[in-house]
Amino acid sequence: MKVSELGEFRLLEAIEKLVGSPGDGKALPWKQLITGIGDDAAVWRCNNPCHLATIDASVEGVHFTLECTPWEDLGWKSLAISLSDIAAMGGSPHYALISLTLPGHTEVDDVMALYRGMIEVAQRFGVAIIGGNISSAPLVMIDTVVLGHGQGETGRTLTRASAEAGDSIAVTGSLGGAAAGFATLTAGLKFKPAATASLREAFLRPKPRIAEGQFLLEKGVKTAIDISDGLVSDLGHICTRSVVGARVNVDLVPIHPAARECLGEKALHYALSGGEDYELLFTAAPSVVSTILREVSFPITIIGEIVADGKAEVALFNDRGESVKAPGSGWQHFAGSF
Amino acid sequence: MKVSELGEFRLLEAIEKLVGSPGDGKALPWKQLITGIGDDAAVWRCNNPCHLATIDASVEGVHFTLECTPWEDLGWKSLAISLSDIAAMGGSPHYALISLTLPGHTEVDDVMALYRGMIEVAQRFGVAIIGGNISSAPLVMIDTVVLGHGQGETGRTLTRASAEAGDSIAVTGSLGGAAAGFATLTAGLKFKPAATASLREAFLRPKPRIAEGQFLLEKGVKTAIDISDGLVSDLGHICTRSVVGARVNVDLVPIHPAARECLGEKALHYALSGGEDYELLFTAAPSVVSTILREVSFPITIIGEIVADGKAEVALFNDRGESVKAPGSGWQHFAGSF
Repeated sequence: MKVSELGEFRLLEAIEKLVGSPGDGKALPWKQLITGIGDDAAVWRCNNPCHLATIDASVEGVHFTLECTPWEDLGWKSLAISLSDIAAMGGSPHYALISLTLPGHTEVDDVMALYRGMIEVAQRFGVAIIGGNISSAPLVMIDTVVLGHGQGETGRTLTRASAEAGDSIAVTGSLGGAAAGFATLTAGLKFKPAATASLREAFLRPKPRIAEGQFLLEKGVKTAIDISDGLVSDLGHICTRSVVGARVNVDLVPIHPAARECLGEKALHYALSGGEDYELLFTAAPSVVSTILREVSFPITIIGEIVADGKAEVALFNDRGESVKAPGSGWQHFAGSF
Repeated sequence: MKVSELGEFRLLEAIEKLVGSPGDGKALPWKQLITGIGDDAAVWRCNNPCHLATIDASVEGVHFTLECTPWEDLGWKSLAISLSDIAAMGGSPHYALISLTLPGHTEVDDVMALYRGMIEVAQRFGVAIIGGNISSAPLVMIDTVVLGHGQGETGRTLTRASAEAGDSIAVTGSLGGAAAGFATLTAGLKFKPAATASLREAFLRPKPRIAEGQFLLEKGVKTAIDISDGLVSDLGHICTRSVVGARVNVDLVPIHPAARECLGEKALHYALSGGEDYELLFTAAPSVVSTILREVSFPITIIGEIVADGKAEVALFNDRGESVKAPGSGWQHFAGSF
């Protein structure tokens, strides 16, 4: 059945049933919810004094195509990218609002699959979907809002604006997998099935680094961003906001194993500028990073250092100390791709 | 200059400058803001324990066309409709997040005008724009998130689910002006300049009834909705959520003066099903409404009563007690217009 046959109000009822309500669950966010889906606004109680809010968009033909993206994966990813913003603040996500536009010919089953994907990632990270909006439109667009908290009594968060000269630059996990996965879906690149599956998983089901962001904040890190536009571009955002420069040794950049296996030296291009890996890029004093490296239970790699530079440039070099040209400027809307 | 020439990051810088920052203002929301536009998420402090959040979409070709809608008005309206959701809860709005999609050929000046309109309505209601997202897309879409609070120690709000048989049904202001204004813009209806201007103002610059919603809540009203889809449709939402029926005397429905002047008897159609007036429709015990009518400083009209009815039907009749057929079902996405 198409959504044009069901109509907005019955579609909303079906979504409300799928998402559930405060009575259904025992997790903390549900317990504090007073009014969820179905009223003019969501209402909840919360005594934590430090609040976080973020919104991110997934637009058909820009961020995804329906030919390449199963609806359930689309749901997962569209919410995961906003959860990743909370991770980059070292925050705890609690609630989500979803604004969805759809053409009337969309299948209701596909919309339910989309929500199943969102519910899956929401539950994984203890988040309740408490409201939203649905509208007709010529294309599918999903705006995901995530609301959460900072840490501790004072509500500390990570920011982009606190990097200092002398800081080490480090990154969680490995990079380039998402962009390589995108290439297997769109550019017809073909690899071994296991590698292809791994790369597509990286692209379609990014894992927001919530616990990792909180851990870094607890250990004294002040500066972080999640890698959505690409390593060089996102490091540039930190440099601009902090008014510092950065020097990165590209030979230290951790590359997604399947991307390296399938693409060889070209994988570095994806790791530096591909984006959408949703790993955390952070900076901190070398002593702080040393402590973290001793205690950490997830992969962290030091890739460079912050330097004094009013022009906020990101300089790349290799193991031999030679300057390396950035393979692209990272994703920027209105200005073309990476 | 087009946004494709400026690029996403410089466009964001221009918007950030226009919107301002915590240091610029002295209003309460700014004072409590820790991190605004420019980081992964907005961060603020707040000790009020009852929180509200809502999101609403404005889609080019569905909710508006650029031929008929000046950019500044588009900005005003796209944020006003989410503020109106907070009004319908009796809440206080504090912060807004804006997710905007634009084609690359959009003029930067138009985007600035859009934000000026949003800033104008935000400032009018003491709201700070603290974050958002911008993405390229084939069409203009604006998702506005408004965050706020309930009232008093316990964080009371108005809801759709608390109407009871015997309640009076009442509405603020007058109806049909917005739909008539829409008709002057799209269907070529021509009236006297003053009337046309008044109707277009009703359509393009709706005034969220924030103070009115708070007043109603303070005076003991429990049930309200804002009229976005149309009087009959929105009353239907209250009936469905509260599991009651409604009887409305159409001869009591307050009609926008310019709509009545220009459209005569046809104006009732617009008042019942046109929608987008963003007045508050509420129900309360007759004694509560009587007290309100004695004390109120804004127009309120009783138009009917809530009755016991498990089917949640909205029945219309006239002064002579004759049954009246609803002129349309109100706006529903995917199912056509009113």
